[in-house]
Amino acid sequence: MNNFDFHNPTHILFGKGRISDLNDQIPADAKVLILYGGGSAERTGVLGQVRKALGDRMVVEFGGIEPNPRFATAMKAVQVIADEGATFLLAVGGGSVIDATKFIAAASRFKGDPWEILTSRGAVVKEAMPFGTVLTLPATGSEMNSGAVITNAEKGAKLPFLSAHCYPVFSILDPELTYTLPPRQIANGVADAFVHIIEQYLTYPVAARVQDGFAETLLRTLIELGPKALDAPKDYDVRANLMWTATLALNGLIGAGVPQDWASHMIGHEITAFNDTDHARTLAVVLPALLNDQRGPKREKLLQYAANVWNIREGEDDARIDAAIEATRDFFHRMGIQTRLGDYGVAASDIETIVSALTEHGMTQLGEQGAITPEDARRILETAQ
Amino acid sequence: MNNFDFHNPTHILFGKGRISDLNDQIPADAKVLILYGGGSAERTGVLGQVRKALGDRMVVEFGGIEPNPRFATAMKAVQVIADEGATFLLAVGGGSVIDATKFIAAASRFKGDPWEILTSRGAVVKEAMPFGTVLTLPATGSEMNSGAVITNAEKGAKLPFLSAHCYPVFSILDPELTYTLPPRQIANGVADAFVHIIEQYLTYPVAARVQDGFAETLLRTLIELGPKALDAPKDYDVRANLMWTATLALNGLIGAGVPQDWASHMIGHEITAFNDTDHARTLAVVLPALLNDQRGPKREKLLQYAANVWNIREGEDDARIDAAIEATRDFFHRMGIQTRLGDYGVAASDIETIVSALTEHGMTQLGEQGAITPEDARRILETAQ
Repeated sequence: MNNFDFHNPTHILFGKGRISDLNDQIPADAKVLILYGGGSAERTGVLGQVRKALGDRMVVEFGGIEPNPRFATAMKAVQVIADEGATFLLAVGGGSVIDATKFIAAASRFKGDPWEILTSRGAVVKEAMPFGTVLTLPATGSEMNSGAVITNAEKGAKLPFLSAHCYPVFSILDPELTYTLPPRQIANGVADAFVHIIEQYLTYPVAARVQDGFAETLLRTLIELGPKALDAPKDYDVRANLMWTATLALNGLIGAGVPQDWASHMIGHEITAFNDTDHARTLAVVLPALLNDQRGPKREKLLQYAANVWNIREGEDDARIDAAIEATRDFFHRMGIQTRLGDYGVAASDIETIVSALTEHGMTQLGEQGAITPEDARRILETAQ
Repeated sequence: MNNFDFHNPTHILFGKGRISDLNDQIPADAKVLILYGGGSAERTGVLGQVRKALGDRMVVEFGGIEPNPRFATAMKAVQVIADEGATFLLAVGGGSVIDATKFIAAASRFKGDPWEILTSRGAVVKEAMPFGTVLTLPATGSEMNSGAVITNAEKGAKLPFLSAHCYPVFSILDPELTYTLPPRQIANGVADAFVHIIEQYLTYPVAARVQDGFAETLLRTLIELGPKALDAPKDYDVRANLMWTATLALNGLIGAGVPQDWASHMIGHEITAFNDTDHARTLAVVLPALLNDQRGPKREKLLQYAANVWNIREGEDDARIDAAIEATRDFFHRMGIQTRLGDYGVAASDIETIVSALTEHGMTQLGEQGAITPEDARRILETAQ
């Protein structure tokens, strides 16, 4: 096992009706800025529940945070905080709203050009406004980690940052809030969480039995319950397990002390940049092709994945690996997610654009060994057609 | 899944050589009180490493904290803090030293009689001195939770308390520090962690797949690696996995959102009170007998335990349950721990004393359903002879 630090101070309030606990989590004299995305937060009644739970506190609201949240939008919220004197931020939404809120929390306390927060990947962040979240979409894990991704449309950049100052103070996870989500968002969330786990698990062995066993538990849970979540949207236990799984998929626990990959994410980001394909769907395209291509360096963990996640234990090594990759693809298909570039309007002639973008963005040494080059990515994408 | 709160702010620094990171974790101007137990901390060189890492800080030391740490001893440390003006506590040791340090941290900031901290089970604690830990013995999980047990010899009481103010600020977990532990302590630590997990897992199902899968991973890890830790004391990966497992066994994660038992602990405490049998060994006596007795209410989880932890999947229900309980007993035996009351000098005629003590201490509704009475405990102990 590699040396590691694990430190996650976010207070999770999980279960039915937990929005009513907001009152105990936010100072009584706080002026709260509620941040949210589109109209669904209002339509589903979540915003109403939140307003009620905040009681007599002074409240300002800022809606319209988009998927792949924009720098310009976030900076408008920073201005609102300055104008209104808000003292506490409350994100109500999924990963995009929470990511934007993290950036807004850091930017509103930053002395200098907030763009530096992103170009430094968070290194310049010395403090942030306190913020909590009410999660409405299980997917990104942003509700219990300190990372965020912000898009700057003008600069054509989608940049991540991390800061120990950007953990939510608390996150409310009420599985019932997910009952009204469209199947497409549930499917994307499950696929996103699945690949988060794989990026931290399917590398090379370092005798980290606990982390491996936890990752395998989370993967099996998604495989068993993901399709059920589509079939039975109001099954509480299914939604509860999916929600907690997606949070634990990226809260630092399963990634502690093990190598991490993230190449599928980096390649996938360029597909989204190219034609706006949903993030999770780019992962479902890239991951199986990447696993197939990288079966040499990933051999031991691919065989472990086949055995412990898919119960594939018979046959030659390569046949078991083939079967595990095929099972992965089938799982995405069961979630209604296609796994070929062509399914998303990316032609063979577009691969060059995507590969060039990787080079442009400095993504030239990807994967757990830093050994996946843009040329390797080209080969991977060609087999993903 | 039941509603739950999960909030664990302790910063874990895990791995080889992490004591040298102490310098970054404790304020440079702190006056540090180092708390430790017997002579082994000095003999093994751990205290030397700690002193070196603390650099120029002012340091005071307080040794002699005993197993089952005493109220009187802790109160002496509280006086040292007042006399010396210490501002930061550093526990160097196992669960006893860390438990004592939690109490000392709370007592030294408490206005009133510190005995109330224990009689209120921590409810009166409003603040505590900051403290960190350097863990030398994987067992109790105290390094990443907010609970402690303190013994008052004069009052004949061993009382637990819990407070959100009593999480360690940080804990350093260096598996190499465990190489020199006597086999008896390793065995006790493994058995203690094992039963911690069982108390949170082997109750009745609430569709908590993630918590169940995590618990099963931790149990399998102890079963596979416990005996190896005895055979090969300097196998880093074995010690690392055991150390991380013991921490995760009682840091709130696997117990979140599920029923909990703790009857084996409560009954075991009375055996320790009776004749000072090692805590872990009392658990190894009580647990198998209790599982056998409670096979009705615990049926579903016993079958799940048989299948997922011991791979016992064939035969009638009761035969599988029998086999799982027998496998549990065998595991303790492989760790060099006997599982019968008679092995520890407790005779049939002593059971009455132990059962009476349960009643005296108000332990009349034990287990996940509050349905285990002292009379049930008597029956359980009779079958544990």
